[in-house]
Amino acid sequence: MNTEVGNLIYRGKAKDVYETDDPERVIIKFRDNITAGDGAKKENLKKKGFYNSIISTKFFKILEEAGVKTQYIELIKPGYMLSRKLKMIPLEIITRNIAAGSLLRNFPFEEKQEFKPPIIQMDYKNDEYHDPTLNDDIAVALGFVTREELKIIREITLKINSVLKDFLKSKGILFPDFKIEFGHDSQGNIVLGDEISPDSCRFWDSETWDVLDKDLFRKGESGVMEAYITVASRVLDDEDKKKWNLDI
Amino acid sequence: MNTEVGNLIYRGKAKDVYETDDPERVIIKFRDNITAGDGAKKENLKKKGFYNSIISTKFFKILEEAGVKTQYIELIKPGYMLSRKLKMIPLEIITRNIAAGSLLRNFPFEEKQEFKPPIIQMDYKNDEYHDPTLNDDIAVALGFVTREELKIIREITLKINSVLKDFLKSKGILFPDFKIEFGHDSQGNIVLGDEISPDSCRFWDSETWDVLDKDLFRKGESGVMEAYITVASRVLDDEDKKKWNLDI
Repeated sequence: MNTEVGNLIYRGKAKDVYETDDPERVIIKFRDNITAGDGAKKENLKKKGFYNSIISTKFFKILEEAGVKTQYIELIKPGYMLSRKLKMIPLEIITRNIAAGSLLRNFPFEEKQEFKPPIIQMDYKNDEYHDPTLNDDIAVALGFVTREELKIIREITLKINSVLKDFLKSKGILFPDFKIEFGHDSQGNIVLGDEISPDSCRFWDSETWDVLDKDLFRKGESGVMEAYITVASRVLDDEDKKKWNLDI
Repeated sequence: MNTEVGNLIYRGKAKDVYETDDPERVIIKFRDNITAGDGAKKENLKKKGFYNSIISTKFFKILEEAGVKTQYIELIKPGYMLSRKLKMIPLEIITRNIAAGSLLRNFPFEEKQEFKPPIIQMDYKNDEYHDPTLNDDIAVALGFVTREELKIIREITLKINSVLKDFLKSKGILFPDFKIEFGHDSQGNIVLGDEISPDSCRFWDSETWDVLDKDLFRKGESGVMEAYITVASRVLDDEDKKKWNLDI
């Protein structure tokens, strides 16, 4: 690859964003850091960045094929994703197909209750305010998104959910919930950014309901990296595995 | 009055609901208890129930005249409101015209920032879960309200805000925010219930921005009852004052 990694322009909890020689493109580096509990719990998981980048790449490709605009351009090498530069909207869009996690702590839903249609929630991405839940009215009043854009985000999110849920089902994986983030590209389009990985989604084995995501880390259980590799092994096709020399 | 107070059917933090001999009517008794901080702070404020009932009566009458259905039928005597029996929807609908309180703690708005249009939020009224904030998707999934009813609630709420804000302005009072609750009547209509009083609203003097509501109690300041009486004195007309022998 000819793309050079330039200056660091953003450092998040688990990813870095670097300039390239093209002002409209960045390189997203998926790091091995894993955090939970509003940053209170931190660790390093060897090769997590490697696997999250190839899993995210797979999902982004599937979504692009389904007509969803994503920031993904190319996985230069595992861990390094060449991406369209976006001005991120500070919202975490959470979609829930099955009750789990904070939804169960905050509301009287039954464990593993299914939602049809799914529930969509939003958190305001702001460390200082601890990512509070918010609604359309508050997001619009905060000034970083319009009511019309929130409608578009909702439509795209429902499509992403539908496409990925079906794909994962075919791989023996349930998709209880996931968090995504959007940004504006240089033309002002709403584009899916960030990542779609076991860090940002709940994945459960369809048969055993075994957890295959970051919840293992949150709960201090073992086998976190093995779960991430299981997800990669199921969602990647043989061509991908061969390309990255994966014996999984 | 001929209406007899029957059996107690519901006891809230500051109001009781009693049966009457008509199954479609109840008597709401406004008590003198005042609570704050999710029930952590409690006190008795002599005549608070008296004043809240006459203030609520005034607002309900104004809203009825503007075409808003309310549960209000008649104030039998101060503290005792004859009301339509409603099956209450467990949502606290919060409307904000000026940033204050929890909104400022949770989001980076500026103190006294104005919202045009107003922000509408919803909390799920559930002591066990500490009244969590929720959105339309979650409310619908919880099963006590339909998406169509939430639209109606929003429309009625905007109308209530507009009517009361204008009325209060004419009385030298700002209306930063307020909380209302709705219920279904026996025909399934969405009807405004509960109360509209200094317990459930923020009222500020238009000139001095002096607080005229329960925030004084929350902050442990003096003059709580005096503030409630000031609100009554400004919103009631001479006829009301004469009827209830009020020298305010």
